[in-house]
Amino acid sequence: MNLAILGAGQLGQMLALAGVPLGIKACFLDPQPDAPGSRVGAQLIADYADRAALDRLSTQCQLATFDFENVPVDAAAYLAGRIPLHPSPQALAQSQDRLREKTLFRSLGIPTAPFQAVDSLAELVAAAGQIGLPAILKTRRFGYDGKGQVWLRESADCAAAWHQLGGQDLILEGVVAFRRELSLIAARRPSGETAFYPLAENVHRGGVLDMSRPALPHPALQAQAEAYGRRLLDQLDYVGVLALELFDCAAGLLANEFAPRVHNSGHWTIEGAVTSQFENHLRAILDWPLGETGLTGPCAMRNCLGVMPDTGRVLAIPGTHVHDYGKSPRPGRKLGHITVTAPDDAHLIQRLEALEGLLIAS
Amino acid sequence: MNLAILGAGQLGQMLALAGVPLGIKACFLDPQPDAPGSRVGAQLIADYADRAALDRLSTQCQLATFDFENVPVDAAAYLAGRIPLHPSPQALAQSQDRLREKTLFRSLGIPTAPFQAVDSLAELVAAAGQIGLPAILKTRRFGYDGKGQVWLRESADCAAAWHQLGGQDLILEGVVAFRRELSLIAARRPSGETAFYPLAENVHRGGVLDMSRPALPHPALQAQAEAYGRRLLDQLDYVGVLALELFDCAAGLLANEFAPRVHNSGHWTIEGAVTSQFENHLRAILDWPLGETGLTGPCAMRNCLGVMPDTGRVLAIPGTHVHDYGKSPRPGRKLGHITVTAPDDAHLIQRLEALEGLLIAS
Repeated sequence: MNLAILGAGQLGQMLALAGVPLGIKACFLDPQPDAPGSRVGAQLIADYADRAALDRLSTQCQLATFDFENVPVDAAAYLAGRIPLHPSPQALAQSQDRLREKTLFRSLGIPTAPFQAVDSLAELVAAAGQIGLPAILKTRRFGYDGKGQVWLRESADCAAAWHQLGGQDLILEGVVAFRRELSLIAARRPSGETAFYPLAENVHRGGVLDMSRPALPHPALQAQAEAYGRRLLDQLDYVGVLALELFDCAAGLLANEFAPRVHNSGHWTIEGAVTSQFENHLRAILDWPLGETGLTGPCAMRNCLGVMPDTGRVLAIPGTHVHDYGKSPRPGRKLGHITVTAPDDAHLIQRLEALEGLLIAS
Repeated sequence: MNLAILGAGQLGQMLALAGVPLGIKACFLDPQPDAPGSRVGAQLIADYADRAALDRLSTQCQLATFDFENVPVDAAAYLAGRIPLHPSPQALAQSQDRLREKTLFRSLGIPTAPFQAVDSLAELVAAAGQIGLPAILKTRRFGYDGKGQVWLRESADCAAAWHQLGGQDLILEGVVAFRRELSLIAARRPSGETAFYPLAENVHRGGVLDMSRPALPHPALQAQAEAYGRRLLDQLDYVGVLALELFDCAAGLLANEFAPRVHNSGHWTIEGAVTSQFENHLRAILDWPLGETGLTGPCAMRNCLGVMPDTGRVLAIPGTHVHDYGKSPRPGRKLGHITVTAPDDAHLIQRLEALEGLLIAS
């Protein structure tokens, strides 16, 4: 089985790695030469919009997916006209626009922070008045890892924020006080069968995910998150893995955004769950039974940003699992991740502390 | 880091898969086009003895290993003269000749079944008298999975056996009564650090490994096996993973043979141990700290011989992990394996029974 993957980043690489034992060959399309995925599959180096490249993929492959949510919807739709593509271009389109995404949440009764579309400075000032400050002005499209966002702390900030981002489609979102960010990794196959991983708790540093690990079990919270996740999956007639980011607030869970793909906050599932998110994405799009999502034991994942720590020193810490994406270093760039497993929480904490020393040093 | 691997079978494929997250790129040499390893690395299609191909590998790679024990020792030695190669050509040579292998065991005080070199029919008759019958006449070289072996049940069988195998270097081995076959997967790095997995119990069908799983813990047996394994590793100044096959007899453990490589009886370590045998082989040859070898829970591995069962039906059984090597079917050929994990032994047995139905049907 040849699987076309639009995007050959580390997510594509890990999908391809999960696919090899299942007899799946990955064929990537990515404009970036020598992308991480190319280590585990063939790579066509071309723009996503390149129709000839998409045609070639569709003759070589029987099925298609993507590894990031900024794939042009047109390209996805074109490919989907030739071979089955999951998740659907419609789900992709919904996730690419913060306004459509939040409106979808609202229509499904999934609570969110207050938000409002903003198309002029006057609208921004009015929205800031209605939503209240602090709030965050965001581009509706192509934002990630905190990019394309400006904080408004007082109404005087409106003009500067508009100056910085105006001219693009924008949304103003209220800032909500939350205890922590959680994410729910969910999978759904064409039959409607769904599977949900235990909620993960995420810690960011400088707007970028730094650590992710399964949250302490909380059945009510898990049930609420899964109810929201199921509504979203069913509404989108979704096929594949989806990540739903949630804020854990005093008033309950608020949905922040969803990613129509495997997600950084699910990397711990490779060693920490019976079935990884990558394998479950493949099972879902191939319409195979979904795999168990239960934990195999205590674990946590740390991202390696800007520089990879020395592999030998990391591996000297018991229970470490190194994932080097093979990318060239650049300040703040996600170069890899390390998952730490342990027989119990006490050992996990010890090991994470030892790892912290190496991540700081590097 | 580019790693040259002589042989691109399923063992090479799984080594390469373990290498990608560690930042290791595999470059295979294998005369067989489209070998399993080629899905996870570059493949040079050439004979092992092809000096130009070996030269090319040595300029592209910083380190070398092999995935099967019938690599010509000359080729390994030639490559080892250019870049570090682990395990050493000496260890490879010892394992290729049953007489040298058994003589080595004997010299290290590691018990074996009685054996004797046989170079003529007269010597065969004499050896059969000394060792006693039943016994097995084997070629000293290139035997695997029961090939190159003839059973002698009575002295009248000698002539026919000699007729069948005579003209090659031969060894006569006494047949010992054993409860079960065990294997010890061991790893050693240049510093001398060693690691041993829990003993695995192997069940054969038609001379080919059918099932392998961690044996019930037996500290005395484990200690005895590890003592033998350590003597062997140290004597060979071994670097990498080695598999030692043992017979569990009334009188204790007898060594049958060793393989200077990752081994089919260690495939369960991918999901069933904290660190897989493949990752530990890479850690050993890269002189990185060895990973934990403890079990993650109950598990067992079944080989898929001749035909792969339907993936979707296998995955409908909880805890199954499919490994399809991507080889074309042929009667009796090892096409893949399936590891079953479970939270407890009762579930493991249920799941294995469900799998048995699919393996028989396929």
